[in-house]
Amino acid sequence: MSDLETSLPLTPSNMAHQGEQFHAWAALQKYVHSDESTKLVPWSFTPRPLNDDDVEIKITHCGICGTDIHQLTNVSTIQSQLLLLPEISMLLTLPPSLQGWNRAVYPLVPGHEFVGHVTHLGSSVTHLKQGDRVGVSPVCASCGGCGLCAGGHAQLCADKVTTYNGTYKGFQTYGGYADRVRVQAKWAVRIPDAIGSDEAAPLLCAGITTYTPFKHHNIGANTRVGIVGIGGLGHLAVQWARAKSCRRILVISSSDSKRAESTTLGATGFITLSDPNLNALPTSPLAKSLDVLFVTGSSATIPWAALLNLVDNLGKVVLLDLPEVPISLPAASLIYRHISLVGSFTGSTEDLEEMLTFAAEKGVRPWIKKVPMAEVNKGVDMVIKGGVRYRVVLVKDGAEN
Amino acid sequence: MSDLETSLPLTPSNMAHQGEQFHAWAALQKYVHSDESTKLVPWSFTPRPLNDDDVEIKITHCGICGTDIHQLTNVSTIQSQLLLLPEISMLLTLPPSLQGWNRAVYPLVPGHEFVGHVTHLGSSVTHLKQGDRVGVSPVCASCGGCGLCAGGHAQLCADKVTTYNGTYKGFQTYGGYADRVRVQAKWAVRIPDAIGSDEAAPLLCAGITTYTPFKHHNIGANTRVGIVGIGGLGHLAVQWARAKSCRRILVISSSDSKRAESTTLGATGFITLSDPNLNALPTSPLAKSLDVLFVTGSSATIPWAALLNLVDNLGKVVLLDLPEVPISLPAASLIYRHISLVGSFTGSTEDLEEMLTFAAEKGVRPWIKKVPMAEVNKGVDMVIKGGVRYRVVLVKDGAEN
Repeated sequence: MSDLETSLPLTPSNMAHQGEQFHAWAALQKYVHSDESTKLVPWSFTPRPLNDDDVEIKITHCGICGTDIHQLTNVSTIQSQLLLLPEISMLLTLPPSLQGWNRAVYPLVPGHEFVGHVTHLGSSVTHLKQGDRVGVSPVCASCGGCGLCAGGHAQLCADKVTTYNGTYKGFQTYGGYADRVRVQAKWAVRIPDAIGSDEAAPLLCAGITTYTPFKHHNIGANTRVGIVGIGGLGHLAVQWARAKSCRRILVISSSDSKRAESTTLGATGFITLSDPNLNALPTSPLAKSLDVLFVTGSSATIPWAALLNLVDNLGKVVLLDLPEVPISLPAASLIYRHISLVGSFTGSTEDLEEMLTFAAEKGVRPWIKKVPMAEVNKGVDMVIKGGVRYRVVLVKDGAEN
Repeated sequence: MSDLETSLPLTPSNMAHQGEQFHAWAALQKYVHSDESTKLVPWSFTPRPLNDDDVEIKITHCGICGTDIHQLTNVSTIQSQLLLLPEISMLLTLPPSLQGWNRAVYPLVPGHEFVGHVTHLGSSVTHLKQGDRVGVSPVCASCGGCGLCAGGHAQLCADKVTTYNGTYKGFQTYGGYADRVRVQAKWAVRIPDAIGSDEAAPLLCAGITTYTPFKHHNIGANTRVGIVGIGGLGHLAVQWARAKSCRRILVISSSDSKRAESTTLGATGFITLSDPNLNALPTSPLAKSLDVLFVTGSSATIPWAALLNLVDNLGKVVLLDLPEVPISLPAASLIYRHISLVGSFTGSTEDLEEMLTFAAEKGVRPWIKKVPMAEVNKGVDMVIKGGVRYRVVLVKDGAEN
C-alpha cells in the first residue's frame, strides 16, 4: 500500500495522533452509488492501543458482505420500490427511521469477514503466535465473564463489540478494508491449512451465520431442509446441508437461473417462487415437506403463507438476514402447527472453530470473485449491482493465499 | 331442556333422520351483534354413530372461548377500526379473505371447553366408565398412529378433528353448547375431584393453551416471565407462572385497571402499555428483563419493538391467540439476539391430564362468571362486550358442579 501511504491527505483525524498509522479504505459520508464523490477513499488512522488480550493482524483478504452495503449506503433499497406487503394491498410510506439502517458513523471502514497473519500479540495472549493465519468475524470483542460468554454464545454478550462501526474502550472500531486491525485475541480464530485465505474470508460471516443453526437446532441426516434464496448466504446453507447429509435439500429461488448451480451445490430439489406447487394449500404436494426452512433475502413481498406451508408441524423457520422492514407474516402456522421463527447472528469462537474444521473436512467453500483491495469501489459496485456468484473477496496486493 | 325439546321447529336438517336427537344452541347464519334474527337458537340434530372408540357425554358446563366469537361472527373486529401497523403509517384495505376467520359452516354449535359425565361407551373403551366426569378440549379426535400422536403432540396430528366446525368420518362436529356430544374416548379426560366442573371447563382451552408452553419450554423457578394482556388467557398464564414459582412475573396491561387483580393472581410486577419504561431502548430498566413473554390479544397496534426489547437474548415470545391480521414485527431482535417466536395451540391428552393434576394441586383456577346455558345469547353478548373477569361459563339447568 505504498502509494496509499505517500498520497494520503492529512486530515484532522489522521493528524490527531503522532503515532503509528493504519491504512484503510473508508466512506467519509453516506455512500451514494451514482455519486463518485461519495466512494470509499484511502484513509489512515491511529490504531487503538494494543491491550494485553489483543492481537494485531496484517490483513490479506476481506469479503464484502451485504451488511457492508447496508452500512455504507445507510439507506434502504426499498425506498425506490413500491412495497406490497403479502396479501395486503396498501399504500406505504416509510418514516425516516425505517429507511435503511441509519447506523453508520463516519469515517466508516467496513469489513467483518477477513483473514490475515498475526503480527503483534498482547502480553497475555498465549494461544496464538506471530505469523499465525487467523480470521475475524463480525464480533471482535466480548466481556468474557457473563453467562452468554461462558455458555458458548459470546456473540450475544451485552458487551460484545462489532468488528466495525462499533466502539471498544472508547475507540471506534474499523474493519477489514484495511492493511491492519487490532482485535481481542480470542476473536481471532486460526484458519485450517486446507482452506485458502480467499475462501476462508466469507466463511467468517456468511459461513458462520448459515452454519450455527445446523449446530444449535441439531440439523442432521434426518432433517428435511429448505433454503429460500441462493446468494452469498444461501449457497453456503445448501452446502452445509449437503455436508450434514440432510435427507432433503430443497432450494426455492426467485427464478430458474440457478437450478443447475443449486444441484452442483448439493440441492436435491429445486422450485421457483412462481411454482404452482408453492402455495398455502394443505393439499399441495410440497405441504409439510420440510423440517427447517432457511430464509435469506426476506423482503416485503416474500410469500410467507406459502413458505410456512412447506414447513412440517413442530418445524422451524430460520431468518438469516435482517429485512429492512418489519416482517409481516400470518401467525396461524406458528400457533396451530407449533412452528418456531428463529434468527441467526454469526457465532461464538467455539462455533467458528467448529465450522472451519467442518468446512475443511467436508469441502464446504464459498464461491467467490476476487477483486484487488485497491479496487474496493469496483467490488462494492459488483455487490450492489448483484449477480455475483456468490461472494466478492478483496485481496491485498501481493497477498499469498 | 324439556322446553327446547317440545318447542323445536322441524327443519330439513333435523327431519333428515328419524333416530335419536341431540339438542343444542346453534347459529344458523353469520352472527351479527345488532341483529336479533342472527342469534343462537335451539337446534336439534341426529348424532353420528357411536364408534367403538367413542364416548357419549352428557354436558353440564361449557366455557365461552374467544374463538367461539370469531367463529360465530365470522368477521373481523378490525373491519370497523382504523388500522395502524406498528411504526408504519399506512392506509390499509383488507381483502375479504382476511376479514375475520371465514371458516364457519352453519348450523354452527360452538363450545370446545366443556365438562360432563360419560353416558355411553364404545365397545373398545376401557379407560373410562359410565358416570365418569370428563372434559373435552378443542380437539375431539386424532389418528392415533402417526409420529405426532405417538410423540405427545396428538393435537397437531394431520387428521385431528376440531371439537366443533370440523368433520369426522363424514359428520360435521358440534360443540359444547348442547346437551350431549360424542367424541373419541381418548380425548375425554377425567377431571380431578378437587376441581369443580364450572372451573374445569375453561381449563380445557384457555388453561391448556397457556399451560403447554410452561411444559414444552421448560419454564420454571429460574424463569422470568412476562404476560401481555390479562383476560381469559392471561389471567391463567399468570397463575401458572405463580404455581411454577417463576422468579419474575411481569404483567403488561393496556390500562391500570387490572393492577390489583394481577397481584392477586400472582404477578410480581405490573406495567401498562403506556409506561415510559416500556420502549425499545437498550437502556430501559426493563430491557432484557424477561426470558419468556406470553402475548395474548395481539393486535395490529401491538408495540412489538418495545415488547421484544423486554426479552433477554435466547428468550422466547409465545403467541397465545391467533391475531386476525398478519403480525408485523421487526426481525432484528430475532436475529441479533436469538429470540424465538413460537405459538401454542391447546395440548395432547397427556398435556391435558398433567395440566389438570397440576391445577388441582396448586390451586390454579379460572375466574368465571356463570350464565345458564339457556341464556347462551346473554353469555355471548357478555364476551363480545368485554369486561368479564375473566371467563364466561354456560351451566346446564340443574347441573351439579
